[in-house]
Amino acid sequence: MKSVLVAGGAGFVGSHLVDRLLRRADIARLVVVDNLWSGLVDNLSHIRDPRFHFEPSDVEAVQSPHLFDEIYHLASPASPPWYMQQPERTISANLIGAMRLRELLKDGGRFCYTSSSEVYGDPIVSPQPESYRGQVDCTGPRSSYDESKRCTEAFLFESQRVRNLDVRVVRPFNIYGPRTRADDGRAVSNFAMQALTGRPITIYGDGLQSRSWGYIDDIIEGFERFFWRDTFDYRGPLNIGNDREISVIDVARHVCKLVPGSRIIHVDPAPQDPTNRCPDLTLARQLLPGWSCHIPYEQGVKMTIDWFANQMRRERRAVSNG
Amino acid sequence: MKSVLVAGGAGFVGSHLVDRLLRRADIARLVVVDNLWSGLVDNLSHIRDPRFHFEPSDVEAVQSPHLFDEIYHLASPASPPWYMQQPERTISANLIGAMRLRELLKDGGRFCYTSSSEVYGDPIVSPQPESYRGQVDCTGPRSSYDESKRCTEAFLFESQRVRNLDVRVVRPFNIYGPRTRADDGRAVSNFAMQALTGRPITIYGDGLQSRSWGYIDDIIEGFERFFWRDTFDYRGPLNIGNDREISVIDVARHVCKLVPGSRIIHVDPAPQDPTNRCPDLTLARQLLPGWSCHIPYEQGVKMTIDWFANQMRRERRAVSNG
Repeated sequence: MKSVLVAGGAGFVGSHLVDRLLRRADIARLVVVDNLWSGLVDNLSHIRDPRFHFEPSDVEAVQSPHLFDEIYHLASPASPPWYMQQPERTISANLIGAMRLRELLKDGGRFCYTSSSEVYGDPIVSPQPESYRGQVDCTGPRSSYDESKRCTEAFLFESQRVRNLDVRVVRPFNIYGPRTRADDGRAVSNFAMQALTGRPITIYGDGLQSRSWGYIDDIIEGFERFFWRDTFDYRGPLNIGNDREISVIDVARHVCKLVPGSRIIHVDPAPQDPTNRCPDLTLARQLLPGWSCHIPYEQGVKMTIDWFANQMRRERRAVSNG
Repeated sequence: MKSVLVAGGAGFVGSHLVDRLLRRADIARLVVVDNLWSGLVDNLSHIRDPRFHFEPSDVEAVQSPHLFDEIYHLASPASPPWYMQQPERTISANLIGAMRLRELLKDGGRFCYTSSSEVYGDPIVSPQPESYRGQVDCTGPRSSYDESKRCTEAFLFESQRVRNLDVRVVRPFNIYGPRTRADDGRAVSNFAMQALTGRPITIYGDGLQSRSWGYIDDIIEGFERFFWRDTFDYRGPLNIGNDREISVIDVARHVCKLVPGSRIIHVDPAPQDPTNRCPDLTLARQLLPGWSCHIPYEQGVKMTIDWFANQMRRERRAVSNG
C-alpha cells in the first residue's frame, strides 16, 4: 500500500489529480500540502475519504515524519498575473519546493512534476515537440515561471542522472475547466466570468494569438496514464495537451454565443504573450495509445461556464442564507 | 565608505575580481565568502590588505551581522566536469545563493552577478547578442549550470522589476588565464597541464568546435567598468568576452608550438558540447567605449602556460623543502 503526497493539491489541476488518485485502491494515505496562495480549500471540500489529509504549508517548508512512495509536485501559480506579482515566490515554490519534496521521497519512490508548455516560451517552431529547446526571455516578465519550470526540470533530470531518481515530467499546455479561480486571469475563466457578470469580454491585443486548450478531464487522464497507470521506461518530458489550435478571439466569440448579450472589447496586449502554442503529440500518442483530448472546446467551454454559473448561484445562496 | 561581499572570491575569476576591488579607495571592508569547492585559498594568499576578510561558508548559508553596499555573486563551479558531478549543488549555489545574498544587501545596494554565455546553450545564431534567447536543453547533462544561470538571471531581473533592485548582470564567454585550477577540465588549462607534464593533449571530438577565449585581465577590466566604474542606466545582461573565434584544435596546436615535444590525441566528444560560441559585442562597445579583449590568445596562452610552469616549480620546491 502506497503513501502519496500532492503538493499544490488544493489548486485547480492539483485537486482534480487528487480526485483521480483517490480512485486507486493501492493508496493507504494521501497528503495534500498547499499554502492556499492560489489554491482553495473549497476545491477539496467534497472529499470524505479517510485516507485524505490536508497539510497547510508552504511546499518549501513542508514537514513530515513519514517518507512517501509517490510525490506529485504541482505547487505553483500558473496564471501570469499571479506569478508576475510574486516572481521570487514562484521560483521558490517550483525549485526549492522540488528540492524539499525530494527529501521526503522514499528510496526508489517516484517523483512526478507538472512542468509547463511555457518552457517553450514564444516558440518559433510549431507544433512544439519535446526536443524543441524553446524561446524564453530569461530576463523578461514571465521568466519567474518559465525559467523556474525549466530549472526544476533540470534539477529533476539531473537527479535522475546522478542518483537514479525515478522522475516523471509532463509539460501540460493550456488547461481550463471547473475549479479555475474566478480571478485566475487566463482567457477561458476570464471570458466566462465577464460574460456571466455582464461585463465586456476583454481580449489582450487582437486576439489572434492561438492556444491549444485542453479540458481538465482529458489532461488528468493523460497525467494518470503517464504518472502511474501505464508502464514504460520513458520518464519525460511529455507534452500533454490539445493539438487543436484555437485563437483567443474564437473562444471569446463562442462564449458570446453561449451567454447572450455578451460583447467583446480589445485591450493592450499582455507583456510577452506568446503568439502561438501547440503541442506536438507524437510522443504522447506513441506512449499512451488511445489517449487524446477528446472534449472539443465548444463543449468544454460550455461545461466551464455552467460550473461558474453554478458557483455563483451557490455563493448567492450562501450570502442570502448567511 | 563601502562594504563589499564577494561570493566565490577564492575562485579563478573571483580572486582576480577581489584584487581589482582592493584597488578602490572607497571600500572599507571586503568579505570573501567561499566554501572552497572549486576555489582555492592559495588564490587569495598574496593579499595583505587589512580590509580583507575570508569567511569559509556555503553561499546559501552565509551569515553576517552587517549588510553590504555591493554584493558580487560568483559562487559556482564553471567547468562542465565539476558541475556535472554535483548538479544539484550547482543549482543551489547559483539560485539559492542569490536569494540568500540578496538578503544581505543594504537597501539601495548593488547586486552584481556573473551569469554565463552558457545561457545561449548550443546557439543557432552567431555571434550571440544579449537578446538571443538561447538553445539550452533543460533536461540535458549541462542543464544544472545553464538553467541555474538562466533562472538566477530571472530571479534578479524580476527582483529589479518588482522591488527596484539595482542589479548588474554580465554573461562572460570562455575565460582563461592564471589561477585556473590544474584539474579544472576546460581546454586551455587542460592543454597547458598536459603539455607541461609530458602527457598527450586530449581534444574532445574533432576540435573544430570554436570558442571565444578571453584572457582574465581583459574580462576583469570589462567587469570593473560595468559593475562599478562607468555610469549608465543599463543593468544587463551584458556580453563580456572576446569575439575572435578560435577552434579548440588551433589552441592545442599553439600549445604544441610553445611546449616542444607535445602531441595531440582525439577522444570522444563531450556531451552536448556547443559547436560554437561567440559574443556579439555591439552593446559592450557602446556602453564601455574603448574596452575590448586586447590580449591575443597566442600571448594569453603563453602567459597561462608560464604561470602553470611556475606553479609546478613552486610545488616541487615545497615538496623538496617539506
